[in-house]
Amino acid sequence: MRWQFIARIIGILLLFLGFSMIVPLLVSLYYHDLALNGFLRSIAITVLAGLLLILLSKSHATEDYINQKEGMTTVALAWTAIGLFGALPFYFSPDFTNFTDAFFESVSGFTTTGSSVMINIEGATQSLLFWRSFIQWLGGMGIIVLSLAILPFLGVGGIQLYKAEVPSPVPDKLTPRLSDSAKILWIVYAVFTLIEIIFLLGGGMSLFEASCHAFTTLPTGGFFPKNASIAHYDSAFFDYVIVIFMVLAGINFSLHYQMLRGKTLAFWEDTECRFFLGLTLLLTLLITWDIYGSVYTSVKDAFRFSSFQVVSIITTTGFATADYEKFPGLSQVLLFVCMFIGASAGSTGGGMKCARIIACFKYCYRELFKIIHPRSISHVKINNTVIPDEVIRSIMGFLALYIGLFILSSILLACMGIDMMTAFGAVAACIGNIGPGFGTVGPTENFAHLPVMGKWLLAWCMLLGRLEIYTVIILFVPEFWRK
Amino acid sequence: MRWQFIARIIGILLLFLGFSMIVPLLVSLYYHDLALNGFLRSIAITVLAGLLLILLSKSHATEDYINQKEGMTTVALAWTAIGLFGALPFYFSPDFTNFTDAFFESVSGFTTTGSSVMINIEGATQSLLFWRSFIQWLGGMGIIVLSLAILPFLGVGGIQLYKAEVPSPVPDKLTPRLSDSAKILWIVYAVFTLIEIIFLLGGGMSLFEASCHAFTTLPTGGFFPKNASIAHYDSAFFDYVIVIFMVLAGINFSLHYQMLRGKTLAFWEDTECRFFLGLTLLLTLLITWDIYGSVYTSVKDAFRFSSFQVVSIITTTGFATADYEKFPGLSQVLLFVCMFIGASAGSTGGGMKCARIIACFKYCYRELFKIIHPRSISHVKINNTVIPDEVIRSIMGFLALYIGLFILSSILLACMGIDMMTAFGAVAACIGNIGPGFGTVGPTENFAHLPVMGKWLLAWCMLLGRLEIYTVIILFVPEFWRK
Repeated sequence: MRWQFIARIIGILLLFLGFSMIVPLLVSLYYHDLALNGFLRSIAITVLAGLLLILLSKSHATEDYINQKEGMTTVALAWTAIGLFGALPFYFSPDFTNFTDAFFESVSGFTTTGSSVMINIEGATQSLLFWRSFIQWLGGMGIIVLSLAILPFLGVGGIQLYKAEVPSPVPDKLTPRLSDSAKILWIVYAVFTLIEIIFLLGGGMSLFEASCHAFTTLPTGGFFPKNASIAHYDSAFFDYVIVIFMVLAGINFSLHYQMLRGKTLAFWEDTECRFFLGLTLLLTLLITWDIYGSVYTSVKDAFRFSSFQVVSIITTTGFATADYEKFPGLSQVLLFVCMFIGASAGSTGGGMKCARIIACFKYCYRELFKIIHPRSISHVKINNTVIPDEVIRSIMGFLALYIGLFILSSILLACMGIDMMTAFGAVAACIGNIGPGFGTVGPTENFAHLPVMGKWLLAWCMLLGRLEIYTVIILFVPEFWRK
Repeated sequence: MRWQFIARIIGILLLFLGFSMIVPLLVSLYYHDLALNGFLRSIAITVLAGLLLILLSKSHATEDYINQKEGMTTVALAWTAIGLFGALPFYFSPDFTNFTDAFFESVSGFTTTGSSVMINIEGATQSLLFWRSFIQWLGGMGIIVLSLAILPFLGVGGIQLYKAEVPSPVPDKLTPRLSDSAKILWIVYAVFTLIEIIFLLGGGMSLFEASCHAFTTLPTGGFFPKNASIAHYDSAFFDYVIVIFMVLAGINFSLHYQMLRGKTLAFWEDTECRFFLGLTLLLTLLITWDIYGSVYTSVKDAFRFSSFQVVSIITTTGFATADYEKFPGLSQVLLFVCMFIGASAGSTGGGMKCARIIACFKYCYRELFKIIHPRSISHVKINNTVIPDEVIRSIMGFLALYIGLFILSSILLACMGIDMMTAFGAVAACIGNIGPGFGTVGPTENFAHLPVMGKWLLAWCMLLGRLEIYTVIILFVPEFWRK
């Protein structure tokens, strides 16, 4: 392990993070709010730390090359470091009283989770609210690179062989990949954000609020600048605009690229995208049926609130226009299950990802087929491509680890005196990078009342989910550190 | 598919079932209760149906041979038929008003689940209570044959290759297997039952109650003749006697056989048994810590009630001495997780089975190992035996189907207007063959208030869990019926 090399990469990222804090600094200057000093100190510390890491690490001749082990360590450490330094503006602001809360909010931002410990959001300084949304947007950019370039290169998560359109990278060179496709996808991401801002402005939102919302919609983040989330506006127009952009954010970004290049049937031809859109529609209709009459008196309202909640949860955004904990049992069960399914692979969404759910379905069917025809040789096919056995195996391992770590984390959280529903709900929401959970961390509550240890545990769950489990958990396997 | 042959087997089983109803008939005669007439009618109908099936089906020359397809169909149909005809004494008794409830109670009995729709248990006729316990005992015998001979022969569930001591059967002859090992294991089962009766008698229980409890402990059934379950007696002696026999019932019966043959370290040498006993102890200690102070004022009481609830749930028996829904969050989370783990393979317990959980752990570890050493060839080993890849694959498929069907059934139950906690709790309790669940079907409540369709759905879940998922679900795969 070339620690100096890893330190150098993290140093560069910290420099970038430090400079990105200039944006909220400008917002602070514009609003003349109390966070200015905090941003200046955060920038100083972050840039200094970054420079220190770069200067202390010697340059390597083989700098462009990175092996799998170093790659994984770098990814896990880099996200942790960014979470730590990104917490500084929160910590230095008048709205936060301790570093645990600041770190929780920061990690929740960068992992695009959206779980919050802020009780009085509207009372916070404008520039801090902007920073809170902005880090989700930066996190989303990180995820696009991570899910479409870095993780496939590291051979993690087993989704890498799904997408033939995004060619798999040369096994020992990461850098060319980054400049090739990620930049194009970032443009798509930025353009979508811009279009959403324009739509929200058109509906009458202020530029500040429109940017905050757009910055957290596209990365499926879910932070919002109002205490009541999107429910604050009570506007069908805003609801549907945000629903559309959440859906777009939940689709594989390479499909957007294909669409924009003129392949109009790209969504339809992709099994995962069909599954994701079909499932979203099915769940919306089921919940509409469930809440019509019992919660809403008109079908129009039922559909509006159903579609918003379903899309918000399945894309793992986490905005709220209604308190789904007051919905009937069926809606709650469906939304709870949504928390695990998640969006598409290669999107900015979290959860298990639709691609893995499809692979799991096909795996089970193949097992049943094997019992009927024991001597048959059958392959799992997705998008008319045979998925190699080791990829399927890796996916099943991912799903098992996801559920296993969900259970373990829920037990640990319950150890801290949390009730069962909240423990399950909070962990599901954090490991799936959703935001609000169930129990006392539902859509109208927040994570502020949890114990300190619980917040660190949940921050770890967010990283676990965001970095596709394997990348984090492998660092805890002794074999990984053996020479 | 030789339907006549299948009909003949089911006919023979119904004859056996009809004759077994003579036992509660004698109990009814002894107590001069109101169920006598009902038992006579049930015997007449069941025996007649059995004879009819036997007479209508022509004898086959190849009768001793049964292929996998026929085997699976027979197993699924036989358990359904036994559930239907076993429901007759309930239906004809003054204590039941409709066939749905009778069928639910009967299937819950034969699958050794122990979920009940009887509201006033102590007000019911004695002979019916005896029948209720007796069918669990018969169900337990069926499960021993099923899990140690029939399912391995059918290649279902993937546990078959774990136990080298119980030699795997000749692939095309089932009958010799049955007479070989099952009979010995039945003797073990019967002797344990007898010893438990003696212990309970020694503690001061009546012969009737002692038999009822022993008849439902060994099959990990959980029906009881008192409204308050074992809490009725409030006796530490009874609690610990029942705990010991529940633990014995949760251990692979072939290990008991080895123990009795003088292999004293049999329990210790078996990975699954070590895991099962260790986990049970660990969970008991954790829950003791959790409920001491918050629910019980003495460590002795906390340990007593903790051990009983843990053992009762993890062995999937379902007796209760305390309302675990009033326990703190950690205890509830742990007990909920226990519902899925279940007892050992080859025991009378349900759930996913410890053997599969171990295999899943090792599978995940191998996936992590593969990331670290991509070119390595590594096998999953249990009890120092390499588990073939297709067995591991089958186990992972089982676990995925188990969770998938748990979710699907919970959604269906929630569709009927049931709240989320009850939907998850009831399905987990029924698919795991446990008995009480969470929500409104907790240990102090019962399943009587559920809608009719919900009861049929849960009865189906019980069969699904009991017959190890594959055997039931495969009948719904169109490919199975294709020539």
